[in-house]
Amino acid sequence: MKYEYTVGNYLLDRLSELGIRHMFGVPGDYNLAFLDDVINYEGMNWVGNRNELNAAYAADGYARINGFAALATTFGVGELSAINGIAGSYAEHVPVVKISGAPTTKVMDNGLYVHHTLGDGKFDHFSRMFQEVTVAQTLLTQENAAQEIDRVLLACLTEKRPVHITLPIDVYNKPANKPESPLHEEIATSNHEVLSQMLSELTPMIDDATQTVILAGYEVNRYENREELLEFANKTGIPVTILSGGKGAFNEKHPQFIGVYNGELSAPYLQQRVDEADCIIQIGAKPTDSTTGGFSYDFSKKNVIQITPFSVNATNKKYAPITMKDALVALSDKITQKNPEELNIIPLKSQINQDPYEAKKENMKQNRFFERLSYFMKERDILLAEQGTSYYGAATMPIPKDTMFIGQPLWGSIGFTFPALLGSQLADRSRRNILLIGDGSFQLTAQELSTMLTQKIKPIIFLINNDGYTVERAIHGENQPYNDIPMWDYKKLPEVFSPEGKSITYKVKTELELEDALKAAENNHDYLTLIEVVMHRDDKPDLLEQLSKQFANQNV
Amino acid sequence: MKYEYTVGNYLLDRLSELGIRHMFGVPGDYNLAFLDDVINYEGMNWVGNRNELNAAYAADGYARINGFAALATTFGVGELSAINGIAGSYAEHVPVVKISGAPTTKVMDNGLYVHHTLGDGKFDHFSRMFQEVTVAQTLLTQENAAQEIDRVLLACLTEKRPVHITLPIDVYNKPANKPESPLHEEIATSNHEVLSQMLSELTPMIDDATQTVILAGYEVNRYENREELLEFANKTGIPVTILSGGKGAFNEKHPQFIGVYNGELSAPYLQQRVDEADCIIQIGAKPTDSTTGGFSYDFSKKNVIQITPFSVNATNKKYAPITMKDALVALSDKITQKNPEELNIIPLKSQINQDPYEAKKENMKQNRFFERLSYFMKERDILLAEQGTSYYGAATMPIPKDTMFIGQPLWGSIGFTFPALLGSQLADRSRRNILLIGDGSFQLTAQELSTMLTQKIKPIIFLINNDGYTVERAIHGENQPYNDIPMWDYKKLPEVFSPEGKSITYKVKTELELEDALKAAENNHDYLTLIEVVMHRDDKPDLLEQLSKQFANQNV
Repeated sequence: MKYEYTVGNYLLDRLSELGIRHMFGVPGDYNLAFLDDVINYEGMNWVGNRNELNAAYAADGYARINGFAALATTFGVGELSAINGIAGSYAEHVPVVKISGAPTTKVMDNGLYVHHTLGDGKFDHFSRMFQEVTVAQTLLTQENAAQEIDRVLLACLTEKRPVHITLPIDVYNKPANKPESPLHEEIATSNHEVLSQMLSELTPMIDDATQTVILAGYEVNRYENREELLEFANKTGIPVTILSGGKGAFNEKHPQFIGVYNGELSAPYLQQRVDEADCIIQIGAKPTDSTTGGFSYDFSKKNVIQITPFSVNATNKKYAPITMKDALVALSDKITQKNPEELNIIPLKSQINQDPYEAKKENMKQNRFFERLSYFMKERDILLAEQGTSYYGAATMPIPKDTMFIGQPLWGSIGFTFPALLGSQLADRSRRNILLIGDGSFQLTAQELSTMLTQKIKPIIFLINNDGYTVERAIHGENQPYNDIPMWDYKKLPEVFSPEGKSITYKVKTELELEDALKAAENNHDYLTLIEVVMHRDDKPDLLEQLSKQFANQNV
Repeated sequence: MKYEYTVGNYLLDRLSELGIRHMFGVPGDYNLAFLDDVINYEGMNWVGNRNELNAAYAADGYARINGFAALATTFGVGELSAINGIAGSYAEHVPVVKISGAPTTKVMDNGLYVHHTLGDGKFDHFSRMFQEVTVAQTLLTQENAAQEIDRVLLACLTEKRPVHITLPIDVYNKPANKPESPLHEEIATSNHEVLSQMLSELTPMIDDATQTVILAGYEVNRYENREELLEFANKTGIPVTILSGGKGAFNEKHPQFIGVYNGELSAPYLQQRVDEADCIIQIGAKPTDSTTGGFSYDFSKKNVIQITPFSVNATNKKYAPITMKDALVALSDKITQKNPEELNIIPLKSQINQDPYEAKKENMKQNRFFERLSYFMKERDILLAEQGTSYYGAATMPIPKDTMFIGQPLWGSIGFTFPALLGSQLADRSRRNILLIGDGSFQLTAQELSTMLTQKIKPIIFLINNDGYTVERAIHGENQPYNDIPMWDYKKLPEVFSPEGKSITYKVKTELELEDALKAAENNHDYLTLIEVVMHRDDKPDLLEQLSKQFANQNV
């Protein structure tokens, strides 16, 4: 019997409520019938990926721009192929809903040795593996479906981290009742008593300090608190620095923005300004090795006020529950505005080379490339930078107002940004997406170019061809064969992966050639642009040059 | 200080002792220094793959031919990308040693938030995930390394299933003592008292039966008991059938071979002969949905004598420890040879169409393709068939003596066989490797073609281009867009993935065109051959046509 409203409809209604308009994934016989519901659902687009890991990466990129994402795969083989992508979303706090089609309840109850299992009649191996990298998991049944869907989606919504739903293929079409109230009404809120206590105890600490600094991070982006951060900075006058993972959280052209902090690898003024601050207001920021020059920060923990998504921590005390948004709004009203002259602010824009970039008849070099790129960027662009030369070059490159930045400094899974670009561009076709990726990383997930061409998206892709794993050569084994990769004819890939798809491709080696390609990219509004930029194998952006030495030391 | 003999040397000595001559993987900063040891080790070849899942698939293919395999990746990102491949090896009993480079003991002890972690200061998430899909796991330390390496390798050796080794990057170069005795001396042996008991209790059961049949499976291949099986069949005279996963375990041209059993999807004679047998000697065979026409076998469990790698089970009784080899040798000496006339044996070669194949001026069809291919195959070939039309077409295609067969009927991870081909061909360059793979599967792991060209291997690849996921269309959603894939220009891939590599490529649509391509492949001994065979979207081998209906019913 075909029911009017089913578990599948309920799940799709809830996903739609979260703003999800695309579902990524790969079909398999344990999810095919549910995919019929996806295809039929008004306002939901199925995006078939070339493999499941790419689907998970695409979902991650989509969620970073859209707020939430979902992907559907089959049991066992499909979900395990995707699990590294989900782990990345977990590490980097990206809310992705992973749906795994499963054998019927009857097959599972009878412990049958069916395909896509380990052949032991047990069906909980994979959901147990997902426990390590998701904040909630559920096995849907005809009885529990609505309640369980709400429970796990609420966890996803609150913690901004992935959840795992096992959907047996006999459950999706069972009857359900339409949800009566929206999901987000239940989300965590601040406790006003604790909020008042925090204000009265911490405001004096901030008011008394003279060299206060704001250190912002990626959670400002995840929890969509960019406006509150801006208000906080404007009202208090305190200078702002960010960790590279939080790029995009604050306007880098703002007069109070003093640069991206990287521990002792920061510019001298910035390093000193942060390390000697007498009060550091850390907002949604989590220092890791990759974002602090290998933990080379020197400020005192006792001077830190840490504002996290649901708490404020300072002087060994935790104030919770307080949302980051409430903390920012309340504190900015309470703190006495600082005298700008006492704060020792040198805005980023006054720190950097002001000479205009002029293309020369020379081979392209990493530092020059990023200098040029900073002029190419426009407001509202989305910039994706793959871990490696791309990320560390982009990390310190000033970007325009309202640019969003996508990277993976903590998880650092190479190949991630390429499918992530598919997701981020589909999340908002109206924004220009620019990807920077090295050849070593590109090869891991290259086939997703085919999906991009099928989906007719129009990003600009800079493929940095420097003949191998340059980031690894910098850490260890400069000339070892394990850091070599096969040389591909990258320019021809679009025509192979989609003979009917259209694209613009360039291969450039010199600064002048890059100018031509940039001009073409600038004028092209119809097709995907792929620009292969050939650079020397051992050329590295300054930050990577230094950081790789820290990493080499960390590994001894 | 650089020690004369280290943990890394010990591990490599043990792997070498298992016959491993190639290490697959992807470099990362937590394994780079150990890879120096790999590169320097006499007789060990580093094979850098395009991504970690492909590396795991390649290792699986290598182990199926070579006996054992190893792959090395970095922590977190690398090992999780590989985990679906390892799960496949676990499901299908393939011995693969998974080595994951990890941060230093000091970084882990201090719970630092370093890259490739979840940022929570915990380092056991991933090895815990591997517990579900490996038979032993270890975290090496300077103190325990030699002992732990032996423990997990012995488990791998005994159970023919993967193991997981976490190797912190500060441990590989610590001092160790060379092993004093070979590893395999400790492997499990039979108990002679139990063996005698089994012989005296089960021999009469076999001798009394008149319609005995041998049902062999993949474990005969894994435990290298093909010769013992042949001896057993020769000495007893009992007819032999196999499950498709066990193809290659018995010579299909043998007069006692009666075909590949597929439950009620078998040929009528075979189905009846097995289902009505009064004694079924099941040797290293495990019936699953994919290999039994969806569990449609009808023989009585009480007539089954099950010989497993370390036990014999019959009449609700378990005789253990007894190795499969000892059981086969001892039983074949004891059983009274059957009278061939009473056994109702119709050899496979008498069952099949004896008309010679003659190419016609017609489009290539699935059934004709496999008919033609059976003539193309030679003794000692290695045949790989991807789950889908390829597997089910190959399953019932008669193959020559000493052909090895690689498929994944239980785990069924699409894309598997392509990198597995890299592994199986490197395991023995002297054997001709033939791969059958559909376009839908190929796209998941296509970039490994680049590694094949770099490694200069010379397999013959039949890429069945039938425009999407035909196996899934057969189960559900024949015309649904989720079963569509982008059309690639497959023929051009070799020149894109390795402009300097050489290959022979064909695209054929008719039977006559296939003849030309086969002739070229036959005469080419220097390069990889890629033959794209275009067939109709909905054309399917007979077995898949029927099995897909069983699967559709199983999913309701």
